[in-house]
Amino acid sequence: MTKAFQHIGLITRPMDDKLEVIRSGLVSYLDENHLTHVHGVVTPDRAADDNLARSLETCDLVIVLGGDGTLLASARLLASLDKPLLCVNLGRLGFLASVSPYEMFEALDEVLHGRFIEERRMMLRGEILEEDGTILARGVALNEVSLHRWAGLRMVEFETSVDGRFLNQQRADGLIVATPTGSTAYALSCGGPIVYPTLESLVLVPVSPHAMGIRPMTLPGSSQVEITVSPENREAGRVTFDGQGNHVLETHHRVIIRRHEQGIRLIHPVEYDYFEILRAKLNWGR
Amino acid sequence: MTKAFQHIGLITRPMDDKLEVIRSGLVSYLDENHLTHVHGVVTPDRAADDNLARSLETCDLVIVLGGDGTLLASARLLASLDKPLLCVNLGRLGFLASVSPYEMFEALDEVLHGRFIEERRMMLRGEILEEDGTILARGVALNEVSLHRWAGLRMVEFETSVDGRFLNQQRADGLIVATPTGSTAYALSCGGPIVYPTLESLVLVPVSPHAMGIRPMTLPGSSQVEITVSPENREAGRVTFDGQGNHVLETHHRVIIRRHEQGIRLIHPVEYDYFEILRAKLNWGR
Amino acid sequence: MTKAFQHIGLITRPMDDKLEVIRSGLVSYLDENHLTHVHGVVTPDRAADDNLARSLETCDLVIVLGGDGTLLASARLLASLDKPLLCVNLGRLGFLASVSPYEMFEALDEVLHGRFIEERRMMLRGEILEEDGTILARGVALNEVSLHRWAGLRMVEFETSVDGRFLNQQRADGLIVATPTGSTAYALSCGGPIVYPTLESLVLVPVSPHAMGIRPMTLPGSSQVEITVSPENREAGRVTFDGQGNHVLETHHRVIIRRHEQGIRLIHPVEYDYFEILRAKLNWGR
Amino acid sequence: MTKAFQHIGLITRPMDDKLEVIRSGLVSYLDENHLTHVHGVVTPDRAADDNLARSLETCDLVIVLGGDGTLLASARLLASLDKPLLCVNLGRLGFLASVSPYEMFEALDEVLHGRFIEERRMMLRGEILEEDGTILARGVALNEVSLHRWAGLRMVEFETSVDGRFLNQQRADGLIVATPTGSTAYALSCGGPIVYPTLESLVLVPVSPHAMGIRPMTLPGSSQVEITVSPENREAGRVTFDGQGNHVLETHHRVIIRRHEQGIRLIHPVEYDYFEILRAKLNWGR
Repeated sequence: MTKAFQHIGLITRPMDDKLEVIRSGLVSYLDENHLTHVHGVVTPDRAADDNLARSLETCDLVIVLGGDGTLLASARLLASLDKPLLCVNLGRLGFLASVSPYEMFEALDEVLHGRFIEERRMMLRGEILEEDGTILARGVALNEVSLHRWAGLRMVEFETSVDGRFLNQQRADGLIVATPTGSTAYALSCGGPIVYPTLESLVLVPVSPHAMGIRPMTLPGSSQVEITVSPENREAGRVTFDGQGNHVLETHHRVIIRRHEQGIRLIHPVEYDYFEILRAKLNWGR
Repeated sequence: MTKAFQHIGLITRPMDDKLEVIRSGLVSYLDENHLTHVHGVVTPDRAADDNLARSLETCDLVIVLGGDGTLLASARLLASLDKPLLCVNLGRLGFLASVSPYEMFEALDEVLHGRFIEERRMMLRGEILEEDGTILARGVALNEVSLHRWAGLRMVEFETSVDGRFLNQQRADGLIVATPTGSTAYALSCGGPIVYPTLESLVLVPVSPHAMGIRPMTLPGSSQVEITVSPENREAGRVTFDGQGNHVLETHHRVIIRRHEQGIRLIHPVEYDYFEILRAKLNWGR
Repeated sequence: MTKAFQHIGLITRPMDDKLEVIRSGLVSYLDENHLTHVHGVVTPDRAADDNLARSLETCDLVIVLGGDGTLLASARLLASLDKPLLCVNLGRLGFLASVSPYEMFEALDEVLHGRFIEERRMMLRGEILEEDGTILARGVALNEVSLHRWAGLRMVEFETSVDGRFLNQQRADGLIVATPTGSTAYALSCGGPIVYPTLESLVLVPVSPHAMGIRPMTLPGSSQVEITVSPENREAGRVTFDGQGNHVLETHHRVIIRRHEQGIRLIHPVEYDYFEILRAKLNWGR
Repeated sequence: MTKAFQHIGLITRPMDDKLEVIRSGLVSYLDENHLTHVHGVVTPDRAADDNLARSLETCDLVIVLGGDGTLLASARLLASLDKPLLCVNLGRLGFLASVSPYEMFEALDEVLHGRFIEERRMMLRGEILEEDGTILARGVALNEVSLHRWAGLRMVEFETSVDGRFLNQQRADGLIVATPTGSTAYALSCGGPIVYPTLESLVLVPVSPHAMGIRPMTLPGSSQVEITVSPENREAGRVTFDGQGNHVLETHHRVIIRRHEQGIRLIHPVEYDYFEILRAKLNWGR
């Protein structure tokens, strides 16, 4: 039988003994199944590694072994490669990783025989610009791009526009621009709604806003969100991508956030059920 | 010049003196502009009037004079007619009605010359069914379909499914299934997010849920939501459409809610700005 | 040895087979320990039974066997009798009932030997008055007195004053005035804070308020809260005591709520830990 | 006539032209009224100035001219001096400062004739300790003591105990321990309840907590709250007093927070109405 995939990329966090056991089991499995493979390591808080990205270009499936940080880093790395991604969860039960190490081989058997669900997840691109339009930094995120107060203790004062139209000015600890995937991550802790993962939309979630009437807001996925630090602001804010990065945002600087053109393709076992994960993670019902 | 619209429907709430003044001014305006017109009356808490609907079938623009209740009733009446709707707001500043009586003639001049924005707004259909599938009642809503505890004092216990997949079981005072339009109405009071009006989506907002982890949820607009009263439930719930109707929902009964095939076409002046209305209504910033 | 208590009152919900087994075990225990006893039945949704209250006057300890409804009804019955109350929980794990049937005899051994914690819990008195001051109804509550919209679908519009000073006017589905004990009951579902049970205070919790800036508020326990239905209101509200009662509140009627002079004395095993119950009920910690 | 106060302390933020005009007007007023006076300057983000505190020891009334930052700094400076404090608000309408510059002289006339309300407001003391009990830092706060994640991007993981009893372990962006005065400041932005200013209580408000069931909690004012950074925590947190200070909190370090023995005595005009300020600040009602 022809396998659905032939050349497998394997991404892990930096190796340790426990991870080595799982990885070598997986490598044996791939060898036995006559699948070629390449292995790369990502470090959640370091910038994307271009060499690793290039080495994965010829893969037709990428398997990620890791917790949330590793998965997010892999998604950012693979955003432009348009490869299906199968996540094996080594951390706590995850919204992204639908396979546990215990069921890894069984799940792979299924996937290699073409029995799987593919789900496209939106990602975000963000650019930080000077007042004159010079780009200071760029980033990609699967969960969220967020603005935060940082070294200072004061709230940040900023203006938000959507597709060039002024939305509001507010003082807050920050603002989260989340994907549906990110709606169950940090945005949820800040009071945002749960957004079904395939709904093309962005969620704006204010973090501890000063005004009472500021509420989370769901926008079409095609929206371009622009956040400018107000002149009244006395201390710089910071911008992060999936909680990584930490770029300074001075007064008059702005961040422009919009949908990534591709996003990622998540592979799940056929019995994958998003609602079941919600129920388990959020202590719903019995 | 050819007018963009020739035959105008006019809907008001039951007439009173103040309304008569505005209506007769409007009728004179239509006559002066050689536009034919037909006038109908809706009562917010009464079922849609089929005769009125038929009389509006030949109109190519419908003007509604009224507050929120009248507008919602008109939208429900017109849902299947596919007519553009211009709302003149006689109540408090509204999310739906973008023209005040003071600017009515100016706005009409613009609209008749073809200068306007048209915005399609999702509506909902709901059916209440017995266990064997017999349909007990049907309804249409622009804002929301909601389940509530009613005569009784206990929370309602119910199960929710989306597209045939079980979502959760909960005890609460109720559950709101809102359109984006409805997201700034009752759903907002219950902690739901603001949903941009043209995003095709449904919002589930629990009303005073017993469990801590139940949160508002945004679903694709194509979702079919099914709510079943649990056998454990000791008292019937009630179902309303835009806060109207009040249908009993006994144990084992269910409500099925899905997007209305057409929805309505709202007409706004070209300077209409949804964000400006948000800022004004929610006391945002300056 | 002299027992700490000699004459025991026993309150249950209406008897059924399962309850009969527990009750007869308890009666045997009391007989073996040479304790006299009297048994009464409360029905959660019925008014307090004066004959039963009188029969409990000579008891020096009252044991309640039941779930939350029975416990609340017993507390309302005993509010003025100043008797210690030991709650054996037959329902789900409760905030009030600290003893399960499985540990009942062991707990009783301890209590009869004087090893227990006594905790005084605030209760509330409410009076519903006509505009001219005529009292229409009175009630007592351990958890909360609440105003609600009821048969109608519109929000209630009402004014709240505290100690004769105007607090605010609002439109909402209702208003809860809760004790610290009630802060973990219905008030919590409506977004109220958890109030430590021995802090003398009242919590006002709005239910789905229309205005964005209305928030839960904690007042001194000595506060007198007065709620008046506004003249603008089109439909009557309803007032309940611990979710029971259902008194109509017409326009111009008002409810006056203040601390009950006595409240109840809850008896707990010495290892009772309020925080442990919080952690268990709210899924805190690991 | 004998004045109610003879020797006046005057505290301002660092002087600028606008402030100089107001101050010199005030100094003339005091001279005309034969009141001696001393002037000191506080900088909101600098530690309390012991020399200034000593110079105010002989005053029998202290007037603060400034915005919220100046008022908070003055309160921290005066916490142990037990002096009545009259706040003249130079910033936005404030919860603390009940007199505007426009009504300053009129208000002073009243106050000097003994017509005023005195309100005692709780303050907090906090100590940061090493594991062995060595005190690393101390601070005083009128609004709140708070723990925050800081330079790092991860949530802080910490344990909270109250009066030596374990309350919970949580991951969050932080935890606010607020006074009633602070309940309408930062704690309100994070979802805390409004606490009536004279209710002796502490409010614990989690900042963006990871777990769904963590809620704000109101404790008796006599409670001692202890927060320990968990060993699982990978980055240090920071502790601030009224948003000032910025003390590092390493793993195993703890903060102990309890009521300040004295607090401050706020002086208000007789027509002062806390509820009126609430209504104005929170956009309540008309």
